[in-house]
Amino acid sequence: MTLWALEIEYDGTPFMGWQRQKHGLTVQQVMAEAGAKLRGGGPVTQALASGRTDAGVHACAQVVQLELQNLSPFRIREGMNFHLRPHPIVVLRCCPAPEGWNARFSATSRSYRYIISNREVMPALEANRVWHVRQKLDEHAMQRAAQILVGHHDFSSFRASACQAKSPMRTLDFLSVRREGDKIFIEARARSFLHHQVRNMVGSLMRVGDGSWPESQMAEVLEAKKRAVAGLTAPAEGLYFMSVDYDPPLPLV
Amino acid sequence: MTLWALEIEYDGTPFMGWQRQKHGLTVQQVMAEAGAKLRGGGPVTQALASGRTDAGVHACAQVVQLELQNLSPFRIREGMNFHLRPHPIVVLRCCPAPEGWNARFSATSRSYRYIISNREVMPALEANRVWHVRQKLDEHAMQRAAQILVGHHDFSSFRASACQAKSPMRTLDFLSVRREGDKIFIEARARSFLHHQVRNMVGSLMRVGDGSWPESQMAEVLEAKKRAVAGLTAPAEGLYFMSVDYDPPLPLV
Repeated sequence: MTLWALEIEYDGTPFMGWQRQKHGLTVQQVMAEAGAKLRGGGPVTQALASGRTDAGVHACAQVVQLELQNLSPFRIREGMNFHLRPHPIVVLRCCPAPEGWNARFSATSRSYRYIISNREVMPALEANRVWHVRQKLDEHAMQRAAQILVGHHDFSSFRASACQAKSPMRTLDFLSVRREGDKIFIEARARSFLHHQVRNMVGSLMRVGDGSWPESQMAEVLEAKKRAVAGLTAPAEGLYFMSVDYDPPLPLV
Repeated sequence: MTLWALEIEYDGTPFMGWQRQKHGLTVQQVMAEAGAKLRGGGPVTQALASGRTDAGVHACAQVVQLELQNLSPFRIREGMNFHLRPHPIVVLRCCPAPEGWNARFSATSRSYRYIISNREVMPALEANRVWHVRQKLDEHAMQRAAQILVGHHDFSSFRASACQAKSPMRTLDFLSVRREGDKIFIEARARSFLHHQVRNMVGSLMRVGDGSWPESQMAEVLEAKKRAVAGLTAPAEGLYFMSVDYDPPLPLV
Protein backbone atom coordinates (compact mmCIF):
# COMPACT_ATOMS: atom_id res chain seq x y z
CA MET A 1 0.00 0.00 0.00
CA THR A 2 1.05 3.53 -0.82
CA LEU A 3 -0.10 6.71 0.86
CA TRP A 4 -1.66 8.96 -1.78
CA ALA A 5 -2.45 12.68 -1.80
CA LEU A 6 -5.71 13.24 -3.67
CA GLU A 7 -6.95 16.68 -4.73
CA ILE A 8 -10.75 16.56 -4.78
CA GLU A 9 -13.72 18.72 -5.77
CA TYR A 10 -17.14 18.23 -4.21
CA ASP A 11 -20.62 19.65 -4.04
CA GLY A 12 -21.29 19.81 -0.29
CA THR A 13 -25.09 19.93 -0.64
CA PRO A 14 -25.90 16.23 -0.11
CA PHE A 15 -23.29 15.61 2.59
CA MET A 16 -23.25 16.04 6.35
CA GLY A 17 -19.83 17.60 5.96
CA TRP A 18 -16.41 15.98 5.76
CA GLN A 19 -16.21 14.04 8.98
CA ARG A 20 -17.75 10.59 9.30
CA GLN A 21 -21.07 10.56 11.19
CA LYS A 22 -23.18 7.74 12.57
CA HIS A 23 -26.25 9.03 10.77
CA GLY A 24 -25.91 10.53 7.32
CA LEU A 25 -23.48 10.46 4.44
CA THR A 26 -20.17 12.32 4.67
CA VAL A 27 -17.36 13.02 2.20
CA GLN A 28 -14.90 11.13 4.40
CA GLN A 29 -17.03 7.99 4.32
CA VAL A 30 -17.60 8.10 0.55
CA MET A 31 -13.85 8.62 -0.06
CA ALA A 32 -12.87 5.76 2.25
CA GLU A 33 -15.41 3.39 0.71
CA ALA A 34 -14.36 4.26 -2.86
CA GLY A 35 -10.78 3.59 -1.78
CA ALA A 36 -11.72 0.19 -0.37
CA LYS A 37 -13.48 -0.69 -3.64
CA LEU A 38 -10.45 0.40 -5.67
CA ARG A 39 -8.23 -1.78 -3.50
CA GLY A 40 -10.59 -4.67 -4.26
CA GLY A 41 -11.76 -5.26 -0.71
CA GLY A 42 -10.05 -5.50 2.63
CA PRO A 43 -10.62 -3.14 5.52
CA VAL A 44 -11.80 0.45 4.91
CA THR A 45 -8.89 2.65 5.94
CA GLN A 46 -9.47 6.18 7.09
CA ALA A 47 -9.29 9.13 4.71
CA LEU A 48 -7.78 12.29 6.24
CA ALA A 49 -8.40 15.79 4.84
CA SER A 50 -6.33 18.96 5.03
CA GLY A 51 -9.28 20.52 6.83
CA ARG A 52 -12.80 19.46 7.76
CA THR A 53 -15.72 21.14 6.05
CA ASP A 54 -19.19 21.54 7.56
CA ALA A 55 -22.41 20.18 6.10
CA GLY A 56 -23.23 22.02 2.88
CA VAL A 57 -19.75 23.52 2.38
CA HIS A 58 -18.24 22.92 -1.07
CA ALA A 59 -14.66 22.22 -2.14
CA CYS A 60 -12.86 23.18 -5.34
CA ALA A 61 -9.52 21.65 -4.34
CA GLN A 62 -9.52 19.91 -0.97
CA VAL A 63 -6.56 17.58 -0.37
CA VAL A 64 -7.06 14.16 1.17
CA GLN A 65 -4.68 11.35 2.12
CA LEU A 66 -5.67 7.72 1.60
CA GLU A 67 -3.84 4.39 1.33
CA LEU A 68 -4.19 2.84 -2.11
CA GLN A 69 -2.26 0.53 -4.43
CA ASN A 70 0.99 1.42 -6.11
CA LEU A 71 -0.52 2.33 -9.48
CA SER A 72 0.04 5.24 -11.85
CA PRO A 73 -1.58 8.57 -10.85
CA PHE A 74 -3.79 8.28 -13.93
CA ARG A 75 -5.13 4.88 -12.85
CA ILE A 76 -5.62 6.03 -9.25
CA ARG A 77 -7.60 9.09 -10.40
CA GLU A 78 -9.71 7.19 -12.90
CA GLY A 79 -10.28 4.27 -10.53
CA MET A 80 -11.34 6.52 -7.66
CA ASN A 81 -13.63 8.54 -9.93
CA PHE A 82 -15.26 5.35 -11.17
CA HIS A 83 -15.97 4.17 -7.62
CA LEU A 84 -17.03 7.63 -6.39
CA ARG A 85 -20.01 7.74 -8.78
CA PRO A 86 -22.78 8.77 -8.47
CA HIS A 87 -21.69 10.99 -5.56
CA PRO A 88 -20.73 14.58 -6.51
CA ILE A 89 -17.07 14.10 -5.56
CA VAL A 90 -14.22 13.84 -8.08
CA VAL A 91 -10.46 13.39 -7.83
CA LEU A 92 -8.87 16.18 -9.91
CA ARG A 93 -5.20 15.29 -9.46
CA CYS A 94 -3.11 13.02 -7.26
CA CYS A 95 0.42 11.89 -6.38
CA PRO A 96 2.10 9.49 -3.98
CA ALA A 97 2.56 11.32 -0.68
CA PRO A 98 6.09 12.57 0.00
CA GLU A 99 7.95 10.93 2.92
CA GLY A 100 6.59 12.21 6.24
CA TRP A 101 3.79 14.24 4.63
CA ASN A 102 0.43 14.56 6.39
CA ALA A 103 -2.61 16.13 4.68
CA ARG A 104 -3.54 18.11 7.76
CA PHE A 105 -0.38 18.84 9.69
CA SER A 106 1.90 19.57 6.73
CA ALA A 107 -0.40 22.29 5.36
CA THR A 108 1.13 25.77 5.40
CA SER A 109 -1.84 27.74 4.08
CA ARG A 110 -5.56 27.28 3.38
CA SER A 111 -7.82 29.42 1.19
CA TYR A 112 -11.57 29.81 1.30
CA ARG A 113 -14.04 31.75 -0.85
CA TYR A 114 -17.46 32.89 0.30
CA ILE A 115 -20.08 33.97 -2.25
CA ILE A 116 -23.06 36.20 -1.45
CA SER A 117 -25.84 36.69 -3.99
CA ASN A 118 -26.76 40.29 -3.24
CA ARG A 119 -30.00 40.92 -5.08
CA GLU A 120 -33.66 41.23 -4.16
CA VAL A 121 -34.76 37.95 -5.72
CA MET A 122 -33.66 34.59 -4.35
CA PRO A 123 -31.38 32.54 -6.60
CA ALA A 124 -32.83 29.83 -8.84
CA LEU A 125 -29.78 28.74 -10.83
CA GLU A 126 -27.41 29.11 -7.86
CA ALA A 127 -29.55 27.66 -5.11
CA ASN A 128 -27.31 25.93 -2.52
CA ARG A 129 -24.26 27.64 -4.04
CA VAL A 130 -24.50 31.14 -2.51
CA TRP A 131 -25.83 32.99 0.51
CA HIS A 132 -28.76 35.12 -0.56
CA VAL A 133 -28.77 38.59 1.07
CA ARG A 134 -31.56 40.87 -0.16
CA GLN A 135 -30.43 44.12 1.37
CA LYS A 136 -27.91 46.01 -0.76
CA LEU A 137 -24.47 45.63 0.80
CA ASP A 138 -21.67 48.19 0.69
CA GLU A 139 -18.74 46.06 -0.42
CA HIS A 140 -16.27 48.92 0.00
CA ALA A 141 -17.15 49.30 3.69
CA MET A 142 -16.89 45.51 4.05
CA GLN A 143 -13.46 45.51 2.40
CA ARG A 144 -12.21 48.23 4.78
CA ALA A 145 -13.62 46.45 7.85
CA ALA A 146 -12.08 43.18 6.67
CA GLN A 147 -8.59 44.71 6.87
CA ILE A 148 -9.08 45.13 10.65
CA LEU A 149 -9.16 41.34 10.95
CA VAL A 150 -5.98 40.69 8.94
CA GLY A 151 -2.97 39.83 11.10
CA HIS A 152 -2.19 37.86 14.27
CA HIS A 153 -5.15 38.08 16.67
CA ASP A 154 -7.21 36.28 19.28
CA PHE A 155 -10.22 35.29 17.15
CA SER A 156 -12.43 34.15 20.07
CA SER A 157 -15.26 36.39 18.80
CA PHE A 158 -15.33 34.38 15.57
CA ARG A 159 -14.92 30.92 17.05
CA ALA A 160 -17.67 28.29 17.29
CA SER A 161 -18.39 27.09 20.82
CA ALA A 162 -17.65 23.55 19.60
CA CYS A 163 -14.17 24.55 18.38
CA GLN A 164 -11.55 22.08 19.59
CA ALA A 165 -8.46 24.17 18.88
CA LYS A 166 -6.20 24.68 21.89
CA SER A 167 -5.60 28.34 21.15
CA PRO A 168 -7.87 31.06 19.72
CA MET A 169 -4.81 32.81 18.26
CA ARG A 170 -4.59 32.72 14.47
CA THR A 171 -2.79 34.70 11.79
CA LEU A 172 -5.15 35.80 9.03
CA ASP A 173 -2.91 36.46 6.02
CA PHE A 174 -5.50 37.80 3.61
CA LEU A 175 -9.16 38.83 3.63
CA SER A 176 -10.71 40.65 0.70
CA VAL A 177 -14.21 41.66 -0.36
CA ARG A 178 -15.13 42.54 -3.95
CA ARG A 179 -18.31 42.80 -5.99
CA GLU A 180 -18.97 41.45 -9.50
CA GLY A 181 -22.47 42.49 -10.56
CA ASP A 182 -24.89 41.22 -7.93
CA LYS A 183 -22.38 38.84 -6.39
CA ILE A 184 -19.95 39.58 -3.57
CA PHE A 185 -16.83 37.44 -3.29
CA ILE A 186 -14.95 37.18 0.01
CA GLU A 187 -11.55 35.51 -0.07
CA ALA A 188 -9.73 34.39 3.08
CA ARG A 189 -6.28 32.84 3.55
CA ALA A 190 -4.49 31.64 6.69
CA ARG A 191 -2.26 28.79 7.84
CA SER A 192 -5.31 27.50 9.69
CA PHE A 193 -8.74 28.70 10.79
CA LEU A 194 -10.83 28.16 13.91
CA HIS A 195 -14.09 26.24 13.62
CA HIS A 196 -16.64 28.42 11.74
CA GLN A 197 -14.12 31.30 11.63
CA VAL A 198 -14.69 32.17 7.97
CA ARG A 199 -18.48 31.94 8.24
CA ASN A 200 -18.45 34.01 11.44
CA MET A 201 -16.22 36.68 9.89
CA VAL A 202 -18.59 36.83 6.89
CA GLY A 203 -21.57 37.20 9.22
CA SER A 204 -19.93 40.21 10.87
CA LEU A 205 -18.83 41.72 7.55
CA MET A 206 -22.46 41.52 6.46
CA ARG A 207 -23.44 43.69 9.46
CA VAL A 208 -21.01 46.33 8.24
CA GLY A 209 -22.21 45.93 4.65
CA ASP A 210 -25.87 46.46 5.48
CA GLY A 211 -25.10 49.48 7.66
CA SER A 212 -26.03 47.91 11.01
CA TRP A 213 -22.48 48.44 12.23
CA PRO A 214 -19.97 51.22 11.59
CA GLU A 215 -16.71 49.85 10.19
CA SER A 216 -14.97 50.65 13.48
CA GLN A 217 -17.19 48.16 15.32
CA MET A 218 -15.18 45.32 13.76
CA ALA A 219 -12.22 46.34 15.94
CA GLU A 220 -14.43 46.35 19.05
CA VAL A 221 -15.83 42.93 18.20
CA LEU A 222 -12.34 41.50 17.67
CA GLU A 223 -11.14 43.11 20.91
CA ALA A 224 -14.10 41.77 22.95
CA LYS A 225 -13.03 38.14 22.40
CA LYS A 226 -16.63 37.06 22.91
CA ARG A 227 -18.63 35.13 20.31
CA ALA A 228 -21.86 36.82 21.47
CA VAL A 229 -20.80 40.29 20.29
CA ALA A 230 -20.06 39.22 16.70
CA GLY A 231 -22.52 38.71 13.83
CA LEU A 232 -24.39 35.56 12.95
CA THR A 233 -22.72 32.52 11.37
CA ALA A 234 -23.13 32.90 7.60
CA PRO A 235 -24.78 29.81 6.10
CA ALA A 236 -22.65 26.93 4.84
CA GLU A 237 -23.85 26.90 1.22
CA GLY A 238 -21.91 30.05 0.27
CA LEU A 239 -18.54 28.64 1.42
CA TYR A 240 -15.94 27.00 -0.82
CA PHE A 241 -12.69 25.37 0.29
CA MET A 242 -10.48 26.68 -2.52
CA SER A 243 -6.96 25.37 -1.96
CA VAL A 244 -4.32 24.22 0.47
CA ASP A 245 -0.58 24.75 0.15
CA TYR A 246 2.27 22.54 1.26
CA ASP A 247 5.97 23.30 1.47
CA PRO A 248 7.44 21.85 -0.67
CA PRO A 249 4.42 21.87 -3.02
CA LEU A 250 2.82 18.50 -3.73
CA PRO A 251 3.78 17.12 -7.16
CA LEU A 252 0.12 16.60 -8.12
CA VAL A 253 -0.58 15.40 -11.66
CA MET B 1 -56.65 41.68 -15.83
CA THR B 2 -53.40 43.14 -17.13
CA LEU B 3 -50.92 41.51 -19.48
CA TRP B 4 -47.53 41.40 -17.73
CA ALA B 5 -44.03 40.88 -19.07
CA LEU B 6 -42.03 38.82 -16.56
CA GLU B 7 -38.27 38.34 -16.77
CA ILE B 8 -37.47 34.96 -15.23
CA GLU B 9 -34.45 32.83 -14.25
CA TYR B 10 -34.68 29.06 -14.00
CA ASP B 11 -32.64 25.94 -13.46
CA GLY B 12 -33.76 23.69 -16.31
CA THR B 13 -32.64 20.45 -14.64
CA PRO B 14 -35.95 19.31 -13.11
CA PHE B 15 -38.15 20.41 -16.03
CA MET B 16 -39.21 18.80 -19.29
CA GLY B 17 -38.46 22.12 -20.97
CA TRP B 18 -40.63 25.19 -21.38
CA GLN B 19 -43.65 23.85 -23.21
CA ARG B 20 -46.49 22.17 -21.35
CA GLN B 21 -46.46 18.35 -21.61
CA LYS B 22 -49.00 15.72 -20.67
CA HIS B 23 -46.45 13.83 -18.61
CA GLY B 24 -43.87 15.74 -16.60
CA LEU B 25 -43.41 19.19 -15.17
CA THR B 26 -42.61 22.14 -17.44
CA VAL B 27 -41.71 25.77 -16.82
CA GLN B 28 -44.83 26.92 -18.70
CA GLN B 29 -47.10 24.89 -16.43
CA VAL B 30 -45.44 26.07 -13.21
CA MET B 31 -45.61 29.71 -14.36
CA ALA B 32 -49.28 29.43 -15.34
CA GLU B 33 -50.23 27.73 -12.07
CA ALA B 34 -48.35 30.29 -9.96
CA GLY B 35 -50.19 33.00 -11.89
CA ALA B 36 -53.55 31.36 -11.15
CA LYS B 37 -52.68 31.20 -7.45
CA LEU B 38 -51.65 34.85 -7.44
CA ARG B 39 -54.96 35.78 -9.07
CA GLY B 40 -56.68 33.85 -6.27
CA GLY B 41 -58.27 31.19 -8.42
CA GLY B 42 -60.15 31.25 -11.68
CA PRO B 43 -58.99 29.57 -14.86
CA VAL B 44 -55.30 28.95 -15.52
CA THR B 45 -54.40 31.20 -18.43
CA GLN B 46 -51.55 30.34 -20.72
CA ALA B 47 -48.05 31.70 -20.19
CA LEU B 48 -46.16 32.51 -23.39
CA ALA B 49 -42.36 32.74 -23.59
CA SER B 50 -40.07 34.67 -25.94
CA GLY B 51 -38.66 31.30 -26.97
CA ARG B 52 -39.15 27.69 -25.92
CA THR B 53 -36.31 25.92 -24.17
CA ASP B 54 -35.70 22.15 -24.26
CA ALA B 55 -35.61 19.86 -21.24
CA GLY B 56 -32.54 20.65 -19.13
CA VAL B 57 -31.83 24.05 -20.71
CA HIS B 58 -31.41 26.91 -18.23
CA ALA B 59 -32.47 30.55 -18.41
CA CYS B 60 -30.82 33.63 -16.91
CA ALA B 61 -33.35 36.10 -18.32
CA GLN B 62 -36.19 34.52 -20.28
CA VAL B 63 -39.21 36.80 -20.86
CA VAL B 64 -42.73 35.50 -20.39
CA GLN B 65 -46.17 37.08 -20.81
CA LEU B 66 -48.99 36.26 -18.41
CA GLU B 67 -52.30 37.86 -17.39
CA LEU B 68 -52.28 39.00 -13.78
CA GLN B 69 -53.92 41.64 -11.61
CA ASN B 70 -53.26 45.33 -11.88
CA LEU B 71 -50.81 45.53 -8.97
CA SER B 72 -47.43 47.22 -8.56
CA PRO B 73 -44.48 45.49 -10.25
CA PHE B 74 -43.04 44.86 -6.77
CA ARG B 75 -46.18 43.02 -5.63
CA ILE B 76 -46.38 41.04 -8.88
CA ARG B 77 -42.76 39.92 -8.54
CA GLU B 78 -42.99 39.04 -4.86
CA GLY B 79 -46.38 37.35 -5.29
CA MET B 80 -45.20 35.24 -8.20
CA ASN B 81 -42.00 34.29 -6.39
CA PHE B 82 -44.01 33.23 -3.34
CA HIS B 83 -46.23 30.95 -5.43
CA LEU B 84 -43.34 29.63 -7.57
CA ARG B 85 -41.66 28.03 -4.55
CA PRO B 86 -40.20 25.47 -4.21
CA HIS B 87 -39.57 25.25 -7.96
CA PRO B 88 -36.23 26.69 -9.15
CA ILE B 89 -37.86 29.53 -11.10
CA VAL B 90 -37.82 33.18 -10.02
CA VAL B 91 -39.21 36.41 -11.46
CA LEU B 92 -36.30 38.88 -11.61
CA ARG B 93 -38.13 41.94 -12.97
CA CYS B 94 -41.48 42.74 -14.55
CA CYS B 95 -43.65 45.44 -16.09
CA PRO B 96 -47.11 45.77 -17.60
CA ALA B 97 -46.83 44.79 -21.27
CA PRO B 98 -46.80 47.72 -23.72
CA GLU B 99 -49.81 48.01 -26.07
CA GLY B 100 -49.63 45.37 -28.81
CA TRP B 101 -46.54 43.69 -27.36
CA ASN B 102 -46.11 39.91 -27.65
CA ALA B 103 -43.35 38.01 -25.81
CA ARG B 104 -42.53 35.91 -28.84
CA PHE B 105 -43.36 37.92 -31.92
CA SER B 106 -42.10 41.30 -30.71
CA ALA B 107 -38.62 39.98 -29.94
CA THR B 108 -35.87 41.48 -32.09
CA SER B 109 -32.89 39.51 -30.76
CA ARG B 110 -32.18 36.49 -28.59
CA SER B 111 -28.90 35.53 -26.91
CA TYR B 112 -27.70 32.13 -25.73
CA ARG B 113 -24.59 30.97 -23.91
CA TYR B 114 -23.19 27.46 -24.06
CA ILE B 115 -20.65 26.29 -21.46
CA ILE B 116 -18.24 23.39 -21.98
CA SER B 117 -16.19 22.04 -19.07
CA ASN B 118 -13.04 21.06 -20.94
CA ARG B 119 -11.02 18.99 -18.51
CA GLU B 120 -10.23 15.33 -17.98
CA VAL B 121 -12.31 14.88 -14.84
CA MET B 122 -16.09 15.10 -14.88
CA PRO B 123 -17.61 18.05 -13.01
CA ALA B 124 -18.85 17.60 -9.44
CA LEU B 125 -19.79 21.17 -8.50
CA GLU B 126 -21.13 21.99 -11.98
CA ALA B 127 -22.97 18.78 -12.76
CA ASN B 128 -26.04 19.57 -14.94
CA ARG B 129 -24.63 23.06 -15.62
CA VAL B 130 -22.03 22.33 -18.32
CA TRP B 131 -21.20 19.88 -21.10
CA HIS B 132 -18.20 17.84 -20.05
CA VAL B 133 -15.72 17.27 -22.91
CA ARG B 134 -12.56 15.42 -21.88
CA GLN B 135 -10.48 15.91 -25.00
CA LYS B 136 -8.57 19.20 -25.05
CA LEU B 137 -10.33 21.56 -27.46
CA ASP B 138 -8.65 24.25 -29.57
CA GLU B 139 -10.83 27.26 -28.83
CA HIS B 140 -9.01 29.41 -31.39
CA ALA B 141 -9.87 27.00 -34.22
CA MET B 142 -13.44 26.90 -32.93
CA GLN B 143 -13.63 30.69 -32.90
CA ARG B 144 -12.40 30.89 -36.50
CA ALA B 145 -14.83 28.18 -37.67
CA ALA B 146 -17.67 29.93 -35.83
CA GLN B 147 -17.21 33.03 -38.01
CA ILE B 148 -18.13 30.93 -41.08
CA LEU B 149 -21.64 30.55 -39.61
CA VAL B 150 -22.19 34.26 -38.91
CA GLY B 151 -24.50 35.98 -41.40
CA HIS B 152 -27.65 35.16 -43.39
CA HIS B 153 -27.67 31.46 -44.32
CA ASP B 154 -29.79 28.36 -44.86
CA PHE B 155 -29.14 26.58 -41.54
CA SER B 156 -30.77 23.24 -42.57
CA SER B 157 -27.61 21.38 -41.47
CA PHE B 158 -28.15 22.65 -37.92
CA ARG B 159 -31.92 22.21 -37.74
CA ALA B 160 -33.70 19.52 -35.71
CA SER B 161 -35.96 17.25 -37.78
CA ALA B 162 -38.82 18.28 -35.48
CA CYS B 163 -38.29 21.99 -36.26
CA GLN B 164 -41.58 23.68 -37.16
CA ALA B 165 -40.16 26.87 -38.68
CA LYS B 166 -41.39 27.57 -42.21
CA SER B 167 -37.96 28.60 -43.46
CA PRO B 168 -34.47 27.34 -42.64
CA MET B 169 -33.07 30.81 -43.39
CA ARG B 170 -31.76 32.68 -40.38
CA THR B 171 -29.40 35.57 -39.74
CA LEU B 172 -26.81 34.74 -37.11
CA ASP B 173 -25.60 38.10 -35.82
CA PHE B 174 -22.87 36.92 -33.47
CA LEU B 175 -21.09 33.69 -32.56
CA SER B 176 -17.98 33.68 -30.39
CA VAL B 177 -15.85 31.07 -28.65
CA ARG B 178 -13.49 31.88 -25.78
CA ARG B 179 -11.73 29.97 -23.02
CA GLU B 180 -11.46 30.86 -19.32
CA GLY B 181 -9.31 28.24 -17.60
CA ASP B 182 -10.86 24.86 -18.25
CA LYS B 183 -14.18 26.30 -19.39
CA ILE B 184 -15.15 27.27 -22.94
CA PHE B 185 -17.91 29.84 -23.41
CA ILE B 186 -19.83 30.03 -26.69
CA GLU B 187 -22.09 33.04 -27.16
CA ALA B 188 -24.71 33.21 -29.91
CA ARG B 189 -27.09 36.00 -30.91
CA ALA B 190 -29.78 36.18 -33.60
CA ARG B 191 -33.30 37.52 -34.12
CA SER B 192 -34.44 33.90 -33.88
CA PHE B 193 -32.97 30.41 -34.01
CA LEU B 194 -34.16 27.13 -35.52
CA HIS B 195 -34.99 24.27 -33.17
CA HIS B 196 -31.72 22.90 -31.68
CA GLN B 197 -29.70 25.34 -33.81
CA VAL B 198 -27.40 26.50 -31.01
CA ARG B 199 -26.82 22.98 -29.71
CA ASN B 200 -26.19 21.69 -33.23
CA MET B 201 -23.73 24.50 -34.00
CA VAL B 202 -21.90 23.71 -30.73
CA GLY B 203 -21.76 20.02 -31.65
CA SER B 204 -20.07 20.91 -34.95
CA LEU B 205 -17.72 23.43 -33.35
CA MET B 206 -16.63 20.67 -31.00
CA ARG B 207 -15.59 18.55 -34.03
CA VAL B 208 -13.34 21.40 -35.12
CA GLY B 209 -12.05 21.90 -31.58
CA ASP B 210 -11.04 18.26 -31.11
CA GLY B 211 -9.33 18.16 -34.50
CA SER B 212 -11.80 15.76 -36.18
CA TRP B 213 -12.62 18.41 -38.77
CA PRO B 214 -10.48 21.07 -40.42
CA GLU B 215 -11.94 24.53 -39.90
CA SER B 216 -12.89 24.69 -43.59
CA GLN B 217 -15.29 21.79 -43.15
CA MET B 218 -17.71 24.12 -41.37
CA ALA B 219 -18.34 25.85 -44.71
CA GLU B 220 -18.98 22.49 -46.41
CA VAL B 221 -21.38 21.45 -43.68
CA LEU B 222 -23.29 24.73 -43.92
CA GLU B 223 -23.37 24.45 -47.73
CA ALA B 224 -24.64 20.84 -47.67
CA LYS B 225 -27.94 21.88 -46.00
CA LYS B 226 -28.25 18.35 -44.58
CA ARG B 227 -28.51 17.64 -40.87
CA ALA B 228 -26.68 14.32 -41.32
CA VAL B 229 -23.38 15.95 -42.29
CA ALA B 230 -23.15 18.16 -39.20
CA GLY B 231 -21.93 17.22 -35.73
CA LEU B 232 -23.96 15.79 -32.89
CA THR B 233 -26.48 17.82 -30.88
CA ALA B 234 -24.62 19.15 -27.84
CA PRO B 235 -26.42 18.20 -24.61
CA ALA B 236 -29.03 20.53 -23.13
CA GLU B 237 -27.41 21.05 -19.73
CA GLY B 238 -24.68 23.36 -21.08
CA LEU B 239 -27.16 25.79 -22.68
CA TYR B 240 -28.40 29.05 -21.11
CA PHE B 241 -31.03 31.37 -22.53
CA MET B 242 -29.32 34.66 -21.67
CA SER B 243 -31.54 37.48 -22.87
CA VAL B 244 -34.11 38.73 -25.33
CA ASP B 245 -34.39 42.25 -26.75
CA TYR B 246 -37.47 44.20 -27.74
CA ASP B 247 -37.73 47.46 -29.66
CA PRO B 248 -38.56 49.67 -27.85
CA PRO B 249 -36.93 47.99 -24.78
CA LEU B 250 -39.30 46.71 -22.09
CA PRO B 251 -39.48 49.04 -19.05
CA LEU B 252 -38.69 46.16 -16.66
CA VAL B 253 -38.26 47.05 -12.98
